[in-house]
Formats: sequence, structure tokens, C-alpha cells
Amino acid sequence: MNILILSGGSRNKIVEYFKNELKTKGKVFVTDCDVLAPALYKADQYFIVPRIEEDGYIDSIFSICKENVIQAVFSLIDPELNILANNVHDFKNIGTIPVVSSSKVVDICYNKYKMFEFLKSNGFNTISTYINKEQFYLDVELGLISYPVFIKPIHGSASININKVESKEEVELLFSKHDKLIIQEYIQGVEYGADVYIDLISGEPVSIFTKKKIKMRGGETDKSVSIKDKKLFELIWGFVKLAGFKGIIDIDIFEVNDVYYISEVNPRFGGGYPHAYESGVNFPKMLINNLQGNVNKVEIGDYEEGIYMMKYGEVYTGKI
Amino acid sequence: MNILILSGGSRNKIVEYFKNELKTKGKVFVTDCDVLAPALYKADQYFIVPRIEEDGYIDSIFSICKENVIQAVFSLIDPELNILANNVHDFKNIGTIPVVSSSKVVDICYNKYKMFEFLKSNGFNTISTYINKEQFYLDVELGLISYPVFIKPIHGSASININKVESKEEVELLFSKHDKLIIQEYIQGVEYGADVYIDLISGEPVSIFTKKKIKMRGGETDKSVSIKDKKLFELIWGFVKLAGFKGIIDIDIFEVNDVYYISEVNPRFGGGYPHAYESGVNFPKMLINNLQGNVNKVEIGDYEEGIYMMKYGEVYTGKI
Repeated sequence: MNILILSGGSRNKIVEYFKNELKTKGKVFVTDCDVLAPALYKADQYFIVPRIEEDGYIDSIFSICKENVIQAVFSLIDPELNILANNVHDFKNIGTIPVVSSSKVVDICYNKYKMFEFLKSNGFNTISTYINKEQFYLDVELGLISYPVFIKPIHGSASININKVESKEEVELLFSKHDKLIIQEYIQGVEYGADVYIDLISGEPVSIFTKKKIKMRGGETDKSVSIKDKKLFELIWGFVKLAGFKGIIDIDIFEVNDVYYISEVNPRFGGGYPHAYESGVNFPKMLINNLQGNVNKVEIGDYEEGIYMMKYGEVYTGKI
Repeated sequence: MNILILSGGSRNKIVEYFKNELKTKGKVFVTDCDVLAPALYKADQYFIVPRIEEDGYIDSIFSICKENVIQAVFSLIDPELNILANNVHDFKNIGTIPVVSSSKVVDICYNKYKMFEFLKSNGFNTISTYINKEQFYLDVELGLISYPVFIKPIHGSASININKVESKEEVELLFSKHDKLIIQEYIQGVEYGADVYIDLISGEPVSIFTKKKIKMRGGETDKSVSIKDKKLFELIWGFVKLAGFKGIIDIDIFEVNDVYYISEVNPRFGGGYPHAYESGVNFPKMLINNLQGNVNKVEIGDYEEGIYMMKYGEVYTGKI
């Protein structure tokens, strides 16, 4: 059984975990458009491919899948998820399963405003979000929201171009300089992250790992600690079932005054997944089990509380 | 022979390299004020100590040195270097050698404006720097410097609070909000980094490793490639000899139109040192050799060109 990981980047740990799990049963292949992506060199075999927006990109992925008898493919970056979701049929025709949620679900996750609308219309607590600045000004006057607020790109990730804004003048300045912005309530709460595996066969969320974020660095969780809370598990279970995710997802949650607010979903392996894996929550094993035709048993909260994760830098060196 | 590494933080690789080098000949001890510093858990033994500005801090370090028969101590963070340099005598009295440059040299490195004055008065190319905004405005009027410029903290590191500024209004705003700022010429050049070992006995720079920085992330080098250039080695050698550094240092250099500009020095292991080590440039071995009373032979440029370094995230997990 061969697995293909797209846009490996510096996610060496994900490659390593799949190699650990497959051992002699199959190979792990990795692609990236950048020859300096270290995850490439952790793979059993790697391919430098065109950038996702370039001509020939999807055909190069199809070729790799066919030539290497790839049983399952997934991506580690957001803009590639929709491409996988939109080509499910063609992948299946060549015998490869794209591990990704439906394109409808992926679209919602990739757009912070759509996610806000989805959460709100389904009765989940979430963070007030505006795409229309006039509507926002109106709500400021009505006392429904107040400064400071965050202004961020509708498709952003990794805390890039997030501005804490104190006045209408600053809102106007940012909206005049950039397109596709949203205005979001400034919440000061405790941040949590959840790694969830939704069984590809049963469609059930079979594994949930939750952690409190202790320190962030450049939009990534630098230190975190595993926690368990029945209320949080129930919230996540209900949300995941309703939205209809598939495979591996990562959810960001805020907690203020004992209330949880769902903030964002990355419908892929999150950057903090190693915390879950090292705590015994083994998504590669569950995925391989699914690919072998077996349903995973439900193991929600099957890990210890109080396990800390601390990130540090490792290096790959070599000639290329 | 036991080594003590202060403020280990997430510098696990440095701890690992010393353990590799010492093997059964001695132990590596690590301190940090934060129980969530992952380098602690890579050490043979670790100590949680007060923050450097707290009472009892230096005494706690002396106690650790005495009780564990520490032969050499060094720090991985800038604000601690001066403390070591100012207490050289007391450390030596208890049989521990602080591996650090003199307090005069450490002071210059910790202050971007002092470094600018030192470089300029000694005839080195460097980046124009102002501490006085009126002087800067005057030079703008005289056409000696022009916008954009960088405004940054005089003691800053890791690209924190660096602003690219386009107008006098922005300069005024930043100077009204913050103290201890400098204004620096905006240079668009290629960035290089040098790791240098200055023999503790001979005082000679015995090893120089230079790399071109390819990609930065959060003020740290994320990807780089080893290079060799006689002109650059000569510049570094002359600068290091003149300034009188000792032990391990890291230098940032810009190149514009074939001219090198020395920018900053961290008189400690730089964040990018693993690139040098993995390319065979072994400072732990040189330091241990010095501690055993031996002078190191000069090995400048004793590595291969074209070795790439790519950083990725590793995690430590455990209960604490």
C-alpha cells in the first residue's frame, strides 16, 4: 500500500509517522514544488511538481499516482484541498483515494466568512465576523460590537496580515489597500485545538484529541497540553457530524467564561498533530485501517491528560 | 568534564551536539526559567532557575556550578551574556570557565547603535544607523538617506517590533510610543551568516563557516546554503581579531553590489549553528579541546560548499 503526501513542505513528522506505520507494507511518496522542502528527503521517494496554479499540475499528480500505484493521496496545504475534492472521480478512476472532505465542506473551511455563516445558522457559538464594513460600522453604532477588532484576509493562515485595529480610520485604510478582508470580534480567551479523525467508511468521528494552547509562535502552536472535557468532546462531535467532514481535520476553538466558540477548521493534518500522535492518537494507523476496508472503532479521548508538547527546530542538511 | 548550558530554551540541537562530543567523558547540564523549555529534557540533568532579572539568579548558577563540578558554562540568550562576562572572576574562583567575550565586547554587540559606531570608526562597511531622529531628518534633507527606513529596538532580536517606515509622521508616531529605538537604512541585499570559533587559548579565529540565507522565518534562518568566499573570510577574520571576541560567535552580513556590510554580531551560538555542525564544523569539539588545555589548529573554510540546510519542527512530549 503506497501513500502520496502532497505539498510536504517542512512537515517531516507526518511523513515519518506514515513510514513508521507502513514499514515494509508500502512506501510513502512526497511532492513539493520547492526542492528545498525538507519533507521530500524524509520520503521513500519524492517528486518536484509544478505549483498548484500552474498548467500541468493536476496531470503530474495523476501520473505519479498511476506510475506508483498510489492507494491514497492527501495534501498538507489549504489551497490544494479543493483541487483534490474537485477531482475525486478522476482519482478514483485510476485507483487512488483522495483523503479529503467534500468540495462544499472544503470551500466553507477555506473562507472565514462562509464558516462564520455556517456556524451561526446552525446555532454554534462563534466569533462575530463581518465582510461588509458598513454593516460593521452600523453594529458599532448600535453597540453590538466595539473596537479593538481584528482585520484579516478571508483566506488567510499562519497569522499572516492580521491587524488589531482601534478605529474607523484604520479600517478604511486597510480596506483601501487590500481586497478580501474580514472584520472579526477581538476575543481574549483560552485557545484550544482539536485533531479529529472521521472514519472514511462509517463517516463517524472515531478519534478526538484536544489540547490547550500555551504558547503560539508565527501562527503555530509552540507549546500545548492535552486536556479532556466531555462538553468539548460533545460540541466537536456534533459539529463534525453536522458538517460532514471526512478523514483528518484540525479545529481551532476559543473558550471565554466557560463557553466554547468554534473559530476555524483546517480539513487536513493540522500543524500541531504531532502532539496527538506522540500521545498515542494514531491517525495514520486509522487511515491505513480504512484503506484495508476496515471500520475503525470509536476511541474518543483515548489518551492521557497533562501531556505537554514543546516544539524545537530540527534540520535536514545535504546537497541537492 | 561537565558543561553547563544556560537558558537552553528550544535549542535542543546544541545540547545534543555536546552530548555527542562528550559521550562518557562528562555530562551536559541545562538550565531554563521555564519548565516548558524542551532543551531541558535533552540534558543529562536539568535545573529550573530564577529569571535572570530576579534575585538569587546568579547565586543559583554558582551553586549549580559548584555542586556539579562544571568546567565550562555558556548562555544561549543575549541578555545573559553580560552577566557571565561581569562575573568571570567569581566563576573562575569556583573552577568554572565562562565561555563568553569580554563585557566591553558583549555590550557593543547588545546595542545596535554602539555596534554601528564601532564598525564605522574602524572603517568597516555597515548599515547607516541613527539614534537621534532630528539628525536623521537633517540627513534626509541633505539627501544622505531616504525613505523607506527600518525602525527597530536598539536591543532587539528575532525581527520583533521591526517596522518599515515611509514618512516622518510614522517615525514620530513610533518614537512617541516606544523608547530605545534606532532608525536604520533599508538595504535590499543578499544576507549571509557566519559562525566563528575564536580559540580560548590562542585568541585566533580558528574556524569560520559562512552560509547564504535563502529563506527567513520569524527572524530565524529557515533555509540556507554553505558558501566560501576568500574576501568574506578575510573581512570576518580582520573584524573578529580587531574586536577581540572569544569562543563562539555568529555574524550577520549583507551583500549589495559585491560589497559586504557587517550588520550584527551575537557573541554566542547562533540559531543557525546546526548548519555548520552538520557540515562538519564542530565547535563543541573545539571548545572541549580548549578546556583540555589544547590549542585548536586553524581550519577556516574546512567544509564543503553547496550544502543546503532546511529547518523543520520536531517535538518533545511528556508529563512535567
